[in-house]
Amino acid sequence: MNERQRARRPGGRSARVGAQVHQAVTDLISERGYGNFTVGEVAARAGVADSSIYRRWGSLENLLTDVALTRLNAQSPMPDTGSLAGDLRTYAAQVAREITGPDGPAVLHLAVALSSSGQQGLEAGADLRAERTRQLQSMLDRARDRGEPAPDVFDVLDHILAPMYIRVLFGMVPLTPDYIDGLVDRLL
Amino acid sequence: MNERQRARRPGGRSARVGAQVHQAVTDLISERGYGNFTVGEVAARAGVADSSIYRRWGSLENLLTDVALTRLNAQSPMPDTGSLAGDLRTYAAQVAREITGPDGPAVLHLAVALSSSGQQGLEAGADLRAERTRQLQSMLDRARDRGEPAPDVFDVLDHILAPMYIRVLFGMVPLTPDYIDGLVDRLL
Repeated sequence: MNERQRARRPGGRSARVGAQVHQAVTDLISERGYGNFTVGEVAARAGVADSSIYRRWGSLENLLTDVALTRLNAQSPMPDTGSLAGDLRTYAAQVAREITGPDGPAVLHLAVALSSSGQQGLEAGADLRAERTRQLQSMLDRARDRGEPAPDVFDVLDHILAPMYIRVLFGMVPLTPDYIDGLVDRLL
Repeated sequence: MNERQRARRPGGRSARVGAQVHQAVTDLISERGYGNFTVGEVAARAGVADSSIYRRWGSLENLLTDVALTRLNAQSPMPDTGSLAGDLRTYAAQVAREITGPDGPAVLHLAVALSSSGQQGLEAGADLRAERTRQLQSMLDRARDRGEPAPDVFDVLDHILAPMYIRVLFGMVPLTPDYIDGLVDRLL
């Protein structure tokens, strides 16, 4: 893209370029694996100049962190079905759908990479998990308020989320509804 | 390194270069995160020429797969303590030590990346997990032969290994002995 083309573009260009670049990153991770591409390849795929990426994100590392945080922040809201079993089954099925969807493994790889990409990524990842833990805790608190026994929030991480994450990260898919419900029933 | 230096080297050079390059990869993953370095940087770190790496491994991707497989194949043997609780506690503590050691998170990242780096990596990862599953199954079979009730091998993956892997991948460390024993006790 040269200066003339850029000048011709109408408003909202920045958001559009952002979305194109984010999708290019997700596609390249899906196709080649995390870490197997350059800023130039992201730019070519997104149809923008390398310099646009460097100007906005500074480095591939920052761009990957931005994509990870944007995608992870866009996760579905917590369900509220009236029972803990219903909430956890719905939540687990929702997470399974997200991580086995077309961009799912790429987003999981981004999440994992976030925690290994220096202090900034580690802190951003920790903030994100803290927010998600808070939402999950609210769901468990609602159950306790209704008089239902509820597990610890870290038990949900260890025994519902971690098995699904690891199976997707290791390519042990699909996650069947029976498997997902089995994780929830076992925990409850 | 130029041709003259190479010619001067004594036997065993190939093994030594291999070990240097593998360690350089592991160090760079630990320091910068997976995917944040080039063949040139690995070569500089290992003190070898870029061309040595390309000649031997062909690409950064193949090199990363080789490091992953070598490290994952070097895992400790399965314990045989005489009781399933003893075996699983020892095994879990051993895995925890490996994945929280100096190279542990890097090796876990390599394992995860293996499954996202195309068909070859996916198959190599699957072979490796099949071998590990076979060893774990032998441990569970020994327990059953002694008359002890034993869980399914995939329950060990889902409820002992996956929680520890995810906590290390997300930087939620340390894994305390109480936490590790708790995972085993809960499964049994």
